[in-house]
Amino acid sequence: MRQGYQSWVFPSRPVIAGTSAIGGPFEAQGPLADDFDILHGHLMIGQDSWEKAERVLLEEACDKAIEKAGLRKEQIHFMLAGDLMNQTISASFSARTLAIPFLGIFGACSTSMEGLALAAQLVDSGSADYVLAATSSHNAAAEKQYRYPTEYGSQKPPTAQWTVTGAGAAVVANKGTGLRIQAATIGRIVDMGMSDPFNMGGAMAPAALATIETHFRDLQLPHDHYDLIVTGDLGKVGHSILSELLPQHNVHVPLERYVDCGMLIYGDNPTVWSGGSGCGCSATVTYGHLMRRMKEGEWNRILVVATGALLSPISYQQKESIPCIAHAVAIEADK
Amino acid sequence: MRQGYQSWVFPSRPVIAGTSAIGGPFEAQGPLADDFDILHGHLMIGQDSWEKAERVLLEEACDKAIEKAGLRKEQIHFMLAGDLMNQTISASFSARTLAIPFLGIFGACSTSMEGLALAAQLVDSGSADYVLAATSSHNAAAEKQYRYPTEYGSQKPPTAQWTVTGAGAAVVANKGTGLRIQAATIGRIVDMGMSDPFNMGGAMAPAALATIETHFRDLQLPHDHYDLIVTGDLGKVGHSILSELLPQHNVHVPLERYVDCGMLIYGDNPTVWSGGSGCGCSATVTYGHLMRRMKEGEWNRILVVATGALLSPISYQQKESIPCIAHAVAIEADK
Repeated sequence: MRQGYQSWVFPSRPVIAGTSAIGGPFEAQGPLADDFDILHGHLMIGQDSWEKAERVLLEEACDKAIEKAGLRKEQIHFMLAGDLMNQTISASFSARTLAIPFLGIFGACSTSMEGLALAAQLVDSGSADYVLAATSSHNAAAEKQYRYPTEYGSQKPPTAQWTVTGAGAAVVANKGTGLRIQAATIGRIVDMGMSDPFNMGGAMAPAALATIETHFRDLQLPHDHYDLIVTGDLGKVGHSILSELLPQHNVHVPLERYVDCGMLIYGDNPTVWSGGSGCGCSATVTYGHLMRRMKEGEWNRILVVATGALLSPISYQQKESIPCIAHAVAIEADK
Repeated sequence: MRQGYQSWVFPSRPVIAGTSAIGGPFEAQGPLADDFDILHGHLMIGQDSWEKAERVLLEEACDKAIEKAGLRKEQIHFMLAGDLMNQTISASFSARTLAIPFLGIFGACSTSMEGLALAAQLVDSGSADYVLAATSSHNAAAEKQYRYPTEYGSQKPPTAQWTVTGAGAAVVANKGTGLRIQAATIGRIVDMGMSDPFNMGGAMAPAALATIETHFRDLQLPHDHYDLIVTGDLGKVGHSILSELLPQHNVHVPLERYVDCGMLIYGDNPTVWSGGSGCGCSATVTYGHLMRRMKEGEWNRILVVATGALLSPISYQQKESIPCIAHAVAIEADK
């Protein structure tokens, strides 16, 4: 493999055999509500803590994706999952329930495509027949852990984002019919020195740029190759920044074909400030909304670029800037 | 791949081209001191926080492993790393410094072998030529995050373990000479309902058993195949439990060939209670001590079974039991 190459092309084009999207009450009010498999009416989801509620979301997402793939959980060789909770407890406790051999991953909100890329790599290389990739986030659990107690009612600036309450999962398989994974690009950390956790879209936009540039360079693709390029959760602020950065760096993606999951999930709702975020954002929008539209024939080739802000409350309090990353997965119709 | 199979055999036997072990002041007083590449005299390692000190350990481990492999960091295709800190900031910030395409992983103290297994899989399948797998822990950073402020001087029971201040890294390559990776087994979560974070060795022993059983079954190996089986950080308590569980489950590993990294690293020092733990425990003992003895011809085949307790302070406070996991990697002399 050439030095500096950071992409995988999958000759067998692994099949996305089943996907799922689970959401909470706020997601149920958004424009993509019809694309969720299950929507919960209350943030607690019948549990006695937000952390346990998030775990239920993730377990439901896994169960539903396996069911939609027409499989039983015993047939899944490996589960790749991670989330925003300290020590990724949503993923670990879900893996306990599912009892599938488990590889824990962490890429903050890029976890969705880190998992899908690795799942495709494992299947394409013959290291597994069926791999489950899953991730979740929960608005109240994330606010509690990362920010201020919600009871403070603290104001947020317009660059802030709203953590999605939701979970998404995909089963990647070495046979069957469905959308297919053609390639993936693993990102490097990009850190432009931004340290404001209320402007993660701005911090993450350069990481998305770097991964998109690398993807086109590694695969030697024309910049208009994809019918749609979708970033994970840059929100309005990050989408606007990336839309400026791309042509500046001579990446001439047709900008009318560039969208962001963080903008799609809540539409124009001003109460989410710049848009949605969290591991559940790119996961639910990709596995619910985007895949439905691909299956309906609207797009043949899309590139999903999930972005992650790899900060912690401790790193922020210690005045560190925010290391950001983006992983891209190319998904095609089965033709 | 057969249903229920959870192992990878690597036909190309990827090479461990370079490894490193970095330690702190307490590790420098232990019986394995000579097997570390760098030992620091102070827990702060010239930084202004424990978290930053841990990051330095991990960065040094990565640099040293790459150097000992005779490579430059630009030649490494991917870095797999994780640690115990919330949002694995030691790994993410080290990946920022190294600027190598980064896949974040989390398996608590099993992270060392999760990373090494995935690195070998990527190299064996041709998805990379050189992969860096690394992990770290820091005693004071872990105490601060997981337990009580150390200023309380709280007493611990004899089943407790001492988090290693250290980092270990390995470069896995598709060519060259060195020890070789023959196979790996990815664990499932095992949770026997134990919830005492001061007895993690006891909680993790059944997970180690499950993975060892699976490894022998998947690979159809005789139980005396390995010259040494080494668990990650079960400590004296967990070692004793696993030594009883193995024959009870008809896994007739010669018990004189079974050791534990958490017992090796500090010898008989009673101040560490049951022994060492933390991501840095199995990483430094494997990449420093065990590899040196293998290179000296003492053992030809070893199985490293890194164990992880996937709890968080929140899961413990919410009265959850501890989900445990173990990943095993088979390492052989180059013959």
